[in-house]
Amino acid sequence: MRADRKGYDPARILLSVSNTVSTSLSLKEVSRVVLRESINALGTDHSSLFLIDESRRHLMLEEVMGFKRDEIENIKVLGSWEAINTQLVKRKKPLMVNDVHRNLLFKDKKLPFSKERLPVSSFLAAPLIKDREVIGALIVSNKKRSMRVFAKEDMHLLRTLSNHVAIALLNARLYEDMRELFISTVKSLVRAIDAKDPYTSGHSERVMRYSTAIGRVMGLDEARLENLGLSSLLHDVGKIGIREKILAKPGKLSSLEKRQMRLHTSIGVRIVDTIKNAGKIIRGIKEHHERFDGKGYPAGLKGGAISPEARIVAVADTFDALTTNRPYRKAHTKDRAFLNIRRGSSRQFDPAVVRAFVSSYKKDPRTWSP
Amino acid sequence: MRADRKGYDPARILLSVSNTVSTSLSLKEVSRVVLRESINALGTDHSSLFLIDESRRHLMLEEVMGFKRDEIENIKVLGSWEAINTQLVKRKKPLMVNDVHRNLLFKDKKLPFSKERLPVSSFLAAPLIKDREVIGALIVSNKKRSMRVFAKEDMHLLRTLSNHVAIALLNARLYEDMRELFISTVKSLVRAIDAKDPYTSGHSERVMRYSTAIGRVMGLDEARLENLGLSSLLHDVGKIGIREKILAKPGKLSSLEKRQMRLHTSIGVRIVDTIKNAGKIIRGIKEHHERFDGKGYPAGLKGGAISPEARIVAVADTFDALTTNRPYRKAHTKDRAFLNIRRGSSRQFDPAVVRAFVSSYKKDPRTWSP
Repeated sequence: MRADRKGYDPARILLSVSNTVSTSLSLKEVSRVVLRESINALGTDHSSLFLIDESRRHLMLEEVMGFKRDEIENIKVLGSWEAINTQLVKRKKPLMVNDVHRNLLFKDKKLPFSKERLPVSSFLAAPLIKDREVIGALIVSNKKRSMRVFAKEDMHLLRTLSNHVAIALLNARLYEDMRELFISTVKSLVRAIDAKDPYTSGHSERVMRYSTAIGRVMGLDEARLENLGLSSLLHDVGKIGIREKILAKPGKLSSLEKRQMRLHTSIGVRIVDTIKNAGKIIRGIKEHHERFDGKGYPAGLKGGAISPEARIVAVADTFDALTTNRPYRKAHTKDRAFLNIRRGSSRQFDPAVVRAFVSSYKKDPRTWSP
Repeated sequence: MRADRKGYDPARILLSVSNTVSTSLSLKEVSRVVLRESINALGTDHSSLFLIDESRRHLMLEEVMGFKRDEIENIKVLGSWEAINTQLVKRKKPLMVNDVHRNLLFKDKKLPFSKERLPVSSFLAAPLIKDREVIGALIVSNKKRSMRVFAKEDMHLLRTLSNHVAIALLNARLYEDMRELFISTVKSLVRAIDAKDPYTSGHSERVMRYSTAIGRVMGLDEARLENLGLSSLLHDVGKIGIREKILAKPGKLSSLEKRQMRLHTSIGVRIVDTIKNAGKIIRGIKEHHERFDGKGYPAGLKGGAISPEARIVAVADTFDALTTNRPYRKAHTKDRAFLNIRRGSSRQFDPAVVRAFVSSYKKDPRTWSP
């Protein structure tokens, strides 16, 4: 295989691309690598990645590179544009246009090509095909090298490149689908468990949302945020082991009933313990009723001995308990709950977590609405 | 890049390999492709793939190609063999041995190299590295071309090839880890729900095992088996919505209580309906108490109008109900349950499902033990 006239070697380029795009199973990361590599390989100003929607008829913009923010809105139109759809999705062929403004296809006045709206003068579009099905499209625009003109060999390169990245994109999609299936299944089971206690409907999901918001402010990385999410979603799972009579009791619990209710953290641990790799989520469940001053349950742990996840869930859990109706009182207002938590800093709660809570509460009030 | 003397072009080979290995997220499939492609690329009799265990110190045999069944046991030894471990796992370097029987490294008498036990005369081993960590090893043995001698360029090729397949293997592992986390989480939540009904502890998991066994005999593909598995695991999830008093009632249910109990299929549908892509698993839950003769509930569907998944779950569910203790009677023996189900063919059950049940029950009695 010889290097072509332009001095780039297609086999080497493809090899590097097909390696780089496979190194992640995150759709966002894979997309970014695909866009960066296609800009480099073809020498263009921008590139855009479209994925097919569920009806398998429309191309939806997934990610772009090289465009300004205002221009991105306009590039979306390309995905539903007749000429692109016919050639790429129906005929499964690439499309090369070297002078947008002179080309007959572009008489359509609705298209946003102009210096101000979408400064694209030439583009090359190829379908992404896996198992003979079009799963998306890759479009590069504004050739910089070779007199600003796309040639046949560019078309060949983009086409081959598209075949290679299709697999990586599909794998990333499969992985994210599995993750979403996982999270949505766990959510629906937890919702069913919450429903046994008429006073806590939707509680677990809200605590998950609150905990994740606090974790983000505290700078937790994606992997830890994911564990925190799962841990907070499952923090009350042990309530399934508490009798309905106690859960739904409208009045105050007797001290015996209270003792039984408090078992929910250890019952939760027993349930979750059978999960493969549960180690990372179990402490958020076990210790979410511990207090920073050591006066909590079940173990009376103090300060840093409580896992960071549990210290976060404690604040999120309390905020939700305060802002929803309980058997023994009406819901507090958000602001009253906010003050309550701030007052609990260093006693019930880790002050660092309370600071993160305060910052998130002030910056993003929408997250903190029950 | 020029083709080398042997007439094979490393870039082309690598390109083809790195594409082929990425087309699946199944560890088994990816492994097979890796082995096949390395045998082809290097022209050897066999190849073997090892993956590192959780302690990150031992190489465990994952998959082989080209060896006879008896020889596979002996190749396992290579993974824990000192010379391989030092060179590949500790030094992260490849190892090339062209005459096993004359090489000093092989004075070790415990090694099983011999015509009868493991007919390997030369081999080439390379570590699989991702993010500077050794995740496994790829070993090809018995060079067929080039005077049966491995050369430096083979070593270079195997090394590059190993880097490429490492990513695909890791992606497959990540995907399977996520799947296992998913299944084990759902299992543990379902187990907690089962536990509310003291008579059905472990019921859902057994029905999953039975349903999958029937589905396998009926020739369902992997994707449908997976949906069937999830559907059967969740078939009784709606029982979470039934009051404890009714679930745990030791005597016979009144007709009002029976009506409430029968709501569990529709409650299950409501719970599962919030899961993304639940479409494929919902009918197994909704229709698992329908009867083939149309006399079931909730809709009185008949024959083929009942989804295949629900027709399978119906048999699996009944077999488990018959072979475990119930509030109103002791468990039947397996053989009595077997006869009961056979007698229900065409009336309560789809005869095709009963045939598959009979065949699985006779062929694989271990699966059918509560």
